[in-house]
Amino acid sequence: MKRGMFITVEGTDGSGKSTQIEMMKDYINNKGIDVVLTREPGGTTISEKIRSIILDPENTKMADMTELLLYAASRAQLVDEIIRPAIEQGKTVIADRFIDSSYVYQGFGRGMGIEIIETVNKTAVDGILPNLTLFFDISPEIALERRTKLSGPDRIEKEEMDFHMRVYKGYKKLASDNPQRIVTIDSNRGVEAIAADVRKIIDAVI
Amino acid sequence: MKRGMFITVEGTDGSGKSTQIEMMKDYINNKGIDVVLTREPGGTTISEKIRSIILDPENTKMADMTELLLYAASRAQLVDEIIRPAIEQGKTVIADRFIDSSYVYQGFGRGMGIEIIETVNKTAVDGILPNLTLFFDISPEIALERRTKLSGPDRIEKEEMDFHMRVYKGYKKLASDNPQRIVTIDSNRGVEAIAADVRKIIDAVI
Repeated sequence: MKRGMFITVEGTDGSGKSTQIEMMKDYINNKGIDVVLTREPGGTTISEKIRSIILDPENTKMADMTELLLYAASRAQLVDEIIRPAIEQGKTVIADRFIDSSYVYQGFGRGMGIEIIETVNKTAVDGILPNLTLFFDISPEIALERRTKLSGPDRIEKEEMDFHMRVYKGYKKLASDNPQRIVTIDSNRGVEAIAADVRKIIDAVI
Repeated sequence: MKRGMFITVEGTDGSGKSTQIEMMKDYINNKGIDVVLTREPGGTTISEKIRSIILDPENTKMADMTELLLYAASRAQLVDEIIRPAIEQGKTVIADRFIDSSYVYQGFGRGMGIEIIETVNKTAVDGILPNLTLFFDISPEIALERRTKLSGPDRIEKEEMDFHMRVYKGYKKLASDNPQRIVTIDSNRGVEAIAADVRKIIDAVI
């Protein structure tokens, strides 16, 4: 059995990832390939329980290291229960956030640096790394505007603008350091224009 | 301010640790030294939430890696909120379980090996390591007998006897590999005989 593709989707909240992921799923399905969608943190019963600790706005005392390890724990469970089995069955997996989110949110946003993120996460994912990553690139101001239309921000979304700027710059740096894996998509546009770009990229790899 | 001592207490469930820890606390207090007790997994609000995920008997699908990372996350929070500040204030910290529990339960019990436990945990505790570790050594059969008198075993306690034998052998190996830090106490005896040994060890270091 040929191993399936593992595609991760990254970008700040408000970048329009979710809409594009649903459209990607339909597009790949129409090629006759099974698609499994996952989201982080979460995606399994155990990971959702971990997610609720990470995002609970009451957990104001959470240490950066605890946050990093909880994301890694949630990811390890998702890899073990969902992602690895699906890839081995030849399915395409589309993950809404994966390792790159830890690089940018904990490594850049929290200022923990890249090395510690790499050490913990390489252990957590045990060799399961994306073949392709789509970075939905939207200016932080527009993303903020879209986010604040939704009510009840979680613990991460409540961080100040400086944090979200560091996250955004982290994504730009990752993308420029990994041009063979990460494709940047200009998301300061309408849904259809973005989706047309996404379809071209998918046609090239699947 | 002189840094406080960091003492960890290890042993299988049913080894009588909890009783001895209470007696140790009183004994050190009577020397005029503040004592802070912690337990793992747990010990802070966030760590207790993580504990409930780790020990929930319903979480039968938990991957070994997830378990390892959740213990490490709980430990990172405990170090950040409780252990490091207490040591810096010159208090003695007594921890009911710490890194050695991950070495024996995940490294030996789950068969994950020592190296991965060391990598994750050295990151998690960020330099905070015990000055002294008391290993309460009880034969696994007697420990099991004591445990089954209590009702409602958690997810770890429900593991089969082979698992608990591997954990026990792990403790023996750690103790023999780290004679300068780990003191073994024969716990196949009555409470008072054990407590007398513990007092002698404490007198030697405090």
